[in-house]
Amino acid sequence: MKYAILFAGILLMAFTSPQKKKKVVFFGDSITQAGVNPDGYITKMDSLIKAEGQSANYELVGAGISGNKIYDLYLRVENDVLSKNPDVVVIYIGINDVWHKASSGTGTDLPKYIQFYKALIKKFTDKNIKVIVCTPTVIGERNDNSNQQDGDLNQYSKVIRSLADEFKLPLVDLRNAFAGYLQKNNPKNEEKGILTTDRVHLNNAGNLLVAQEMWKVIKQ
Amino acid sequence: MKYAILFAGILLMAFTSPQKKKKVVFFGDSITQAGVNPDGYITKMDSLIKAEGQSANYELVGAGISGNKIYDLYLRVENDVLSKNPDVVVIYIGINDVWHKASSGTGTDLPKYIQFYKALIKKFTDKNIKVIVCTPTVIGERNDNSNQQDGDLNQYSKVIRSLADEFKLPLVDLRNAFAGYLQKNNPKNEEKGILTTDRVHLNNAGNLLVAQEMWKVIKQ
Amino acid sequence: MKYAILFAGILLMAFTSPQKKKKVVFFGDSITQAGVNPDGYITKMDSLIKAEGQSANYELVGAGISGNKIYDLYLRVENDVLSKNPDVVVIYIGINDVWHKASSGTGTDLPKYIQFYKALIKKFTDKNIKVIVCTPTVIGERNDNSNQQDGDLNQYSKVIRSLADEFKLPLVDLRNAFAGYLQKNNPKNEEKGILTTDRVHLNNAGNLLVAQEMWKVIKQ
Amino acid sequence: MKYAILFAGILLMAFTSPQKKKKVVFFGDSITQAGVNPDGYITKMDSLIKAEGQSANYELVGAGISGNKIYDLYLRVENDVLSKNPDVVVIYIGINDVWHKASSGTGTDLPKYIQFYKALIKKFTDKNIKVIVCTPTVIGERNDNSNQQDGDLNQYSKVIRSLADEFKLPLVDLRNAFAGYLQKNNPKNEEKGILTTDRVHLNNAGNLLVAQEMWKVIKQ
Repeated sequence: MKYAILFAGILLMAFTSPQKKKKVVFFGDSITQAGVNPDGYITKMDSLIKAEGQSANYELVGAGISGNKIYDLYLRVENDVLSKNPDVVVIYIGINDVWHKASSGTGTDLPKYIQFYKALIKKFTDKNIKVIVCTPTVIGERNDNSNQQDGDLNQYSKVIRSLADEFKLPLVDLRNAFAGYLQKNNPKNEEKGILTTDRVHLNNAGNLLVAQEMWKVIKQ
Repeated sequence: MKYAILFAGILLMAFTSPQKKKKVVFFGDSITQAGVNPDGYITKMDSLIKAEGQSANYELVGAGISGNKIYDLYLRVENDVLSKNPDVVVIYIGINDVWHKASSGTGTDLPKYIQFYKALIKKFTDKNIKVIVCTPTVIGERNDNSNQQDGDLNQYSKVIRSLADEFKLPLVDLRNAFAGYLQKNNPKNEEKGILTTDRVHLNNAGNLLVAQEMWKVIKQ
Repeated sequence: MKYAILFAGILLMAFTSPQKKKKVVFFGDSITQAGVNPDGYITKMDSLIKAEGQSANYELVGAGISGNKIYDLYLRVENDVLSKNPDVVVIYIGINDVWHKASSGTGTDLPKYIQFYKALIKKFTDKNIKVIVCTPTVIGERNDNSNQQDGDLNQYSKVIRSLADEFKLPLVDLRNAFAGYLQKNNPKNEEKGILTTDRVHLNNAGNLLVAQEMWKVIKQ
Repeated sequence: MKYAILFAGILLMAFTSPQKKKKVVFFGDSITQAGVNPDGYITKMDSLIKAEGQSANYELVGAGISGNKIYDLYLRVENDVLSKNPDVVVIYIGINDVWHKASSGTGTDLPKYIQFYKALIKKFTDKNIKVIVCTPTVIGERNDNSNQQDGDLNQYSKVIRSLADEFKLPLVDLRNAFAGYLQKNNPKNEEKGILTTDRVHLNNAGNLLVAQEMWKVIKQ
């Protein structure tokens, strides 16, 4: 009898334990806002998860707002992320911080970017939420560092790699992944159309690449 | 005996209660950072208070940091203001939000300025801290609306007047006060030297004008 | 007989001499490029001229290119204006010089604007072409100096008024005319829709106002 | 007798003709303005020429003005270069065209940069003046494409290489030379101090490198 009960208990655990899904919130800008669209990277990641038979283990939640910069994330972190009690937060921000310098004079100085990024990380680690950070992707797809914002994007990416190192956070190096892809797949050195539709926002291939890169890190 | 003691107690309260000074924190940028200097507006206000025999009633605290914009105040509100348990906070911010658009491409879009301003007000009113708001002063002292940022500063000022109205907050209309002063005292339409040393940072007369305008509102 | 012939000769001159039309070239940006459209200000001026029975005396020629700043006019002055041997040139430029500072970081510094403007005037006066200068109109139609670029536009306008004075050139003070019109006709202080479609480009009323203001000066 | 005189005349020409120095004008911005200083690149080139015993063959003339962009060169080409009847012009411009986008909102759009560059080349080739073009050096000396303007500088450099190709002009690829030097000599990836004093203006080593690179091309 004793053995039978024990066995039943183990069985029960085996079935109920996976039911507690990991809630992953994606915190970012317009790319993340579009991430929940049928072709978006969050939707694509959900398909990858299904294909690997892991659907019972992950719940993916989009929290992207168009035009957001690092300080916008900080302003809405309580309402849009902490209130959802996530297990994991993926921070994917920085394109507008760089881009808006040229397009409207309202980008974010690098020291302020770092300051807010650290404050944001602290908000999550204080609540034992796992933080995954991402380098920004691209503003223009030319593969020879000749897009107007390449210097700045490279510098902001270096900073995020340092933050990952300093705070022991998993890193999704999207900028690096995009650079590698564009080396191989952009022989005419086009500005757009390989991974983006308009130099910034992701097309189907871009969404798939982001989904794959993030998923590799999330599932670890 | 009992009565005597009680009487003494009441007397003590009558004399000590005014001793509880009102703590006023000035929350802003480099102008406020310099406000505690010997010639700064906070120091000058302290002298005005002494002259009116009100020293026992007010404690003035500077909380200005050079280069700050509205979102920088939001980031440091807990550490630099709430932690000090003020009775009153005077918010004087906006010049860098406008100026940095042209000088480094890192100003603040008006909708974001409003969003953070409201969030900051809420932080204070939630704790029953009285909030006093100020319109930004000047970037250039020409008195015919021909300084590069005049349009933007006028618009940000209108927004602050609206916020004062919406949230029933006392308003120190510094921009208006400066405009009036410069109409009378800048006959050659100079860019600087009347109320500022360099188009932005206050000289002696500028610090005095700010001290007077703020004090009129604070003492009400 | 002799007298009769002489008389006929004089009569002939009286009729033929006005047949030599004054050629007026309008030199500017997208507003001038659109000026030759059915609703454009050049087309409207042509109608005003017809209505006054002066069609035989004026030939109006558009020479506007979208996005142009003062230095673009200087670059194409030979090909696009001098080659046409005009009697009069109307220079209407400055909006992009101011606007592009904020929209793409490629506006024109005021000292350079003045330098090129003077060089352009010299190109025309050297060939005895009459020069008429115009102040820039608007970037935003709010009538209380609260449009972002109002300060800059006011300053560039002051400079053009000074140039008119210095070089004894007729001035069409479009900025002033627009300000007067918007004081009367923009009671809700809208950003656009009174004289422009989009804060900058002229609607029907805007084109008519420009046509009237310029024509008053040209016909003198 | 006649023949003897003729022969003497020919001999004389053969010896005097090399005495006609090649006049080389350096046309650029503050770096070129400082080029004639004791440590400047033009002064250093003069020393290189002396060391090679070629002083009799070259006259070097500086024509740099601080803050200049491509269109400023175009504006002053007659007065500052053509009037000097040079044999060779070295065009070294582009840093401010890129830099001023971020520092004052008054940089130069790439298509306008190309347009003015071509117009400038034509001014010289029309007069049979040999044109040598240079790619811009650096704004920041980090060697991993992480200086803010690296993307833009790379793109403007590509354009100049294309112009050299299109118009068959000798090219001094300064950007490439600086990149190579900084790969070897900037192991700590500093922003300044290797070839510049302040990220842009050349120190002794920077002036020497420019002098050497230009001289290699000029003497061909």
